Amino acid sequence: HDIGRLTIQCADQPGIVAAVAGFLAEHGANITELGQFSTDSENGEFFQRTVFHCENVADRLAELDGDFAAQVGRRFGMTYTFTSAASPKRVAIMVSKYDHCLLELLWRNKRGDLDMDITLVISNHEDLRADAESFGVPFVHIPVSRANKAEAEARQLELLAGNVDLVVMARYMQILSAEFLSAVGCPVINIHHSFLPAFAGAGPYLKAKERGVKLIGATAHYATANLDEGPIIEQDVVRVSHRESVAELERRGAEVERSVLARAVQWHCEDRVMTYGNSTTIL
Amino acid sequence: HDIGRLTIQCADQPGIVAAVAGFLAEHGANITELGQFSTDSENGEFFQRTVFHCENVADRLAELDGDFAAQVGRRFGMTYTFTSAASPKRVAIMVSKYDHCLLELLWRNKRGDLDMDITLVISNHEDLRADAESFGVPFVHIPVSRANKAEAEARQLELLAGNVDLVVMARYMQILSAEFLSAVGCPVINIHHSFLPAFAGAGPYLKAKERGVKLIGATAHYATANLDEGPIIEQDVVRVSHRESVAELERRGAEVERSVLARAVQWHCEDRVMTYGNSTTIL
Amino acid sequence: HDIGRLTIQCADQPGIVAAVAGFLAEHGANITELGQFSTDSENGEFFQRTVFHCENVADRLAELDGDFAAQVGRRFGMTYTFTSAASPKRVAIMVSKYDHCLLELLWRNKRGDLDMDITLVISNHEDLRADAESFGVPFVHIPVSRANKAEAEARQLELLAGNVDLVVMARYMQILSAEFLSAVGCPVINIHHSFLPAFAGAGPYLKAKERGVKLIGATAHYATANLDEGPIIEQDVVRVSHRESVAELERRGAEVERSVLARAVQWHCEDRVMTYGNSTTIL
Amino acid sequence: HDIGRLTIQCADQPGIVAAVAGFLAEHGANITELGQFSTDSENGEFFQRTVFHCENVADRLAELDGDFAAQVGRRFGMTYTFTSAASPKRVAIMVSKYDHCLLELLWRNKRGDLDMDITLVISNHEDLRADAESFGVPFVHIPVSRANKAEAEARQLELLAGNVDLVVMARYMQILSAEFLSAVGCPVINIHHSFLPAFAGAGPYLKAKERGVKLIGATAHYATANLDEGPIIEQDVVRVSHRESVAELERRGAEVERSVLARAVQWHCEDRVMTYGNSTTIL
Repeated sequence: HDIGRLTIQCADQPGIVAAVAGFLAEHGANITELGQFSTDSENGEFFQRTVFHCENVADRLAELDGDFAAQVGRRFGMTYTFTSAASPKRVAIMVSKYDHCLLELLWRNKRGDLDMDITLVISNHEDLRADAESFGVPFVHIPVSRANKAEAEARQLELLAGNVDLVVMARYMQILSAEFLSAVGCPVINIHHSFLPAFAGAGPYLKAKERGVKLIGATAHYATANLDEGPIIEQDVVRVSHRESVAELERRGAEVERSVLARAVQWHCEDRVMTYGNSTTIL
Repeated sequence: HDIGRLTIQCADQPGIVAAVAGFLAEHGANITELGQFSTDSENGEFFQRTVFHCENVADRLAELDGDFAAQVGRRFGMTYTFTSAASPKRVAIMVSKYDHCLLELLWRNKRGDLDMDITLVISNHEDLRADAESFGVPFVHIPVSRANKAEAEARQLELLAGNVDLVVMARYMQILSAEFLSAVGCPVINIHHSFLPAFAGAGPYLKAKERGVKLIGATAHYATANLDEGPIIEQDVVRVSHRESVAELERRGAEVERSVLARAVQWHCEDRVMTYGNSTTIL
Repeated sequence: HDIGRLTIQCADQPGIVAAVAGFLAEHGANITELGQFSTDSENGEFFQRTVFHCENVADRLAELDGDFAAQVGRRFGMTYTFTSAASPKRVAIMVSKYDHCLLELLWRNKRGDLDMDITLVISNHEDLRADAESFGVPFVHIPVSRANKAEAEARQLELLAGNVDLVVMARYMQILSAEFLSAVGCPVINIHHSFLPAFAGAGPYLKAKERGVKLIGATAHYATANLDEGPIIEQDVVRVSHRESVAELERRGAEVERSVLARAVQWHCEDRVMTYGNSTTIL
Repeated sequence: HDIGRLTIQCADQPGIVAAVAGFLAEHGANITELGQFSTDSENGEFFQRTVFHCENVADRLAELDGDFAAQVGRRFGMTYTFTSAASPKRVAIMVSKYDHCLLELLWRNKRGDLDMDITLVISNHEDLRADAESFGVPFVHIPVSRANKAEAEARQLELLAGNVDLVVMARYMQILSAEFLSAVGCPVINIHHSFLPAFAGAGPYLKAKERGVKLIGATAHYATANLDEGPIIEQDVVRVSHRESVAELERRGAEVERSVLARAVQWHCEDRVMTYGNSTTIL
C-alpha cells in the first residue's frame, strides 16, 4: 500500500526532472525506480515513469494529484497520472473461439504474474465459457452478426464503459468500430498474428507460407480505428522453415502470440507504456 | 576432390529416393549427407540434396550427369545438378557506397568460411575500391545514371554473363532491370534492409521508427523483376526500442544485414537452396 | 493409419540409404520425409529417420519389422524401430508443486498439438490434483521422504513399468535413483531450469543473479544416473538484465521451461530424437 | 562539446535524484537522458547515469567535479564521474592470432559506430600486424613465453599504464596476472568464447559438442584475477545442432564473439556499465 507510480509526458524543457524529484522529496516519497526518455535533445517529447515509496499512498492519490497540478504539472504543461500499486487494473477480455491467448492470461494472472483483476470475459461465441468460469471469471456471450453489430457493441459498452480500465482483444475475431473505441473510455489492446506491418489483415500464416518467410511473429498493439495500424507495444518472432505447413505455422504462431500479449498486458498494467504519435515509449 | 553434390527437384512420386540411392551406390558414390523434403504427401513437389563421397568426382561430373539422365532423371522428370565441392562458385559482388556487406563477404571468404571465389566487385561509385583491392579482388567502377542505365547494364553484362555463377547485390542501390536479370544467366542474391514484406522499398528504418516496431530485420532473397518480391532465402531480426534513433536503427540493421547475407550466400554456394513458386526450400 | 516411421542407427557404411529405400519401395511404402545424418564421413555413426506412407501400416508393423531384420537390419548391424503415427506414445508426467510445465503439456495435448496420450500424473504432493483431473487425467499421490524413498519408487514403478512409453519429469523435485531409471523400461525426460551445463544443481536463478548473467535458460534432457548430465534434447534462453529480481528470473525462466519441455516432448513423441554418447541427433 | 555524462553509485537513500537534478539545473545543465536503478527498495545500492546538455562542458569538468563533491557527492557518500562525450576513451587492444574480434572493433570504429580512439594494438605474435596497421593503428609485438612473462607484462605496462582508459582482450590467449590487472590502472574487458559460466577454461567448443548443447555463446566480462569469473557485461547465443562440427561451432561462435564484444566495448565507452559485487548494472 506504500508503492506509488507517477507517469509524465510533456514537451521537453529544462528542469523537469529536478522539479518532479523535488516535489516527491517534499511529499515524503522516496524514488525507487526512475525511467526517463526524450525523443530529441531539442524540441523533443519528454517521458518519465517514477516508482516511489510513500506511506499510505493509496489513500493520498487525490491529494498528490492536486498538489502536483498546482506545483509542477501546469507549469510544464504535463499530462500525468498517479497510481497506487495496490490497486490493480480492472481488465475485460474479449475472445471468439481460439483459447490460447485467453488461457495464457487467465493462468498467468492466477499465478500472480500479472498485476490485474480480470473482471469479465466477453465472447461472440459460447465455446470458451467453461475455460473462463473454471477460473471464476464471469463469461458473457454476446453474439455478433452483420445485422446486429451496433446492438452488440451497445451491449458490450454497457458492460465495459466505466467498469474496466483496460480491454484486451485476445484473438477476438471482430473489428471494433471507431465509435466503440471512443465510447469505451479506456485503452484496448489487440494481438495480431503477424509481425506487423507485414501480413496485416486476415490469413497471415497462409500469406507467410506463400512468401517463404523464415520468421513468423505476433504484434500486440493498441486498437485504433485503422485496423492493424495502432501503436505497437510488443512484438516477437520465431524461426520457421519450408517444412512447416500452414497449420504448423499457426501452432507456432500461437505460442508467440501468448507470450507477446502477456508481456504487453503486463507492461500496460505496470503503467510502463506511453503513446506518442503512432509509436510507444516503454519505460 | 572426392566430394560431390546432387540436387534434385521434381513432382513427388513413389520410388525416387530408392532410385537415386541405387544409382549412386552403383556408381561407387557413398552418401554422406541427405536432405529431403516434399511439400505435400500427395501431389507435392519433391526436393533432395545429396552429398556423396566418390573418387575423382570432379573429373566425372559429365559422366555422372549423362548416366543419371538416362537411368533416373528423365524417368522422374527431374531437374537436377551434379557439382563438385572442389569447384567453388565464381561470385561477383555489386555495391554502391555502404561497405558493411561487402567487407563481411570479403573477410569471411578470406578466412575460408565461404565456399566461393570472389572474382569481381562492380560498383556505381569509386568509394569502395581500396576495400576490394586490399583483398586482391578486382574492382570495376561503372557509373550509373538515369541516362546511361541501359549502357551501364550492358557493360556489367559483358563482365558477368558466362563468367560468374552468382551475383550478390551487397547493398547495391540501383534496381536491376528484368532484362539484366534474364541476360546475366545466373542467380542474383539481394539483401534488403528490412524484414520483408514489411517496409519494402526505400527508407525502411525511418518507416520502422515511425511505426514504433520493436524488432528490425534484414532479408536476403533472389532478385526478380518485381522489386523486393523474390523468393526469400534468409531473414533475421534484432530487438530495438523507442530509444534508438533512425541512425542507430541503421547501425543495428547493418549488423543483421551482414550475417543474413553471409548465411544466404553460404547456403547458395553449398547448393542448399532450391526455389519453388515464390518460396525456397533449404536443405 | 497409413503413416509409418522408421528410425535407424548404426555404424556408417556404403549402401545404407539405397538398401533402406529399396526395402521400403518393395514393401509398397512411399517415403514422404527423410532425415539423415552421419557424425563423420569416415568411421562415423549413421542416423536415419524415414516417414512413409503405406496402407494399413499400423497392422503391418510386426511383418515389416521381421522382413527388415532379415533383409537389411542384420546385414548393417542396425538398431531400428518401426512405429505407426496412429499409435501415440503413452506418457506419464511426474510433478511436485510447480504447475507451469504440467499445465503446458496438458493444455497443448488437449489442443492436439502433441502426439501423445497422457495416461497418468504422479506427484509427491497433492497440490496439482485438481489441475490434472480437470483435464480428465488420473492423478496419483505418492509421498516421498528420505525414509520411504525406495518404497515410493517401487510404487511408482508398479504404475509405470510396462504401462507407458515415456516418463516426463515436469519439475519433479526429487532425484530418481539409477535403479528406478533402469527398471522403468522407457526413456525419462527431465526439464532443468538453467542453460546446462551452467548452474547445474539447485538454485540456478539465485546463482545466475549473483553471477550477473544476461541470459537465463532451460534445458530438456534425458534423465540419467548422473544428475543434470544426460543427453540434451533442447535448450533455449531469454534475455534478462540487472533489473530482474530472483523472483522475476523465476517467472521468466518458467516461460522458457514451458516451451523447451513441450518441444522436447513433441520431438521425442515424433521419434525424432536419437542418442549417441552423451549427445542427441534430432532428425 | 556540450554533452556531458554523470555516473553515480552509492548506498540508496532518500533524496538522491532530487539533489542531483537540482545540482545540474543550478549549473545550467539540462538532463537529456536519465537511467536509474536500485538493487532493493531497502538498503539497496543506488546507480544513476545522467546525460546532460551544458555549454562547453568539456572545459568545465573539473569545476563541476569540485562543486558536485562539495554540494552532493560527499553528503551521500557517492562514487561518481563526470565525463565529456567529446573526449572518447583511449583504448588498447590485445590480441594473439585470431583476427575476428580485432577486425570487428577496428572496422566498426572506422565507421564511427564506437565512441573510442584505438591507440595501440599489442600482440604476442606478429600475425595481425598488417591488419592493425592498415587501419593506421600502431602494432607492438611483445612475445610472451613462460620464461619471460613477467618481463613481457612489464613492457606492456610501460605502454599502457597512464596512456589508455581501457584495455580490450580481443581473444588474447594469455592470462594476465593479478599484478598486471592491478598495475594497469584501467578496466580490462575480455571476451570468452562460451556462455559463461558454462564451459569456462580452454576448449569450450569441443566440450559443447560432446555435451550436445543446442546453443553456443560468448561472454564479454571485466577481467579479474580469477580467470573467467569477472563481472559479465554482455552475453549472447546462437542456435546449433548435431550437424555442426567443432570447426563449424568455432565459426559460428566467432560471429557471436564479434557482436558481443563490440556491444560490451560500446557500452563501456558510453559510461553505461557499473560494477557491483560480481555483477554489472548497465544503464
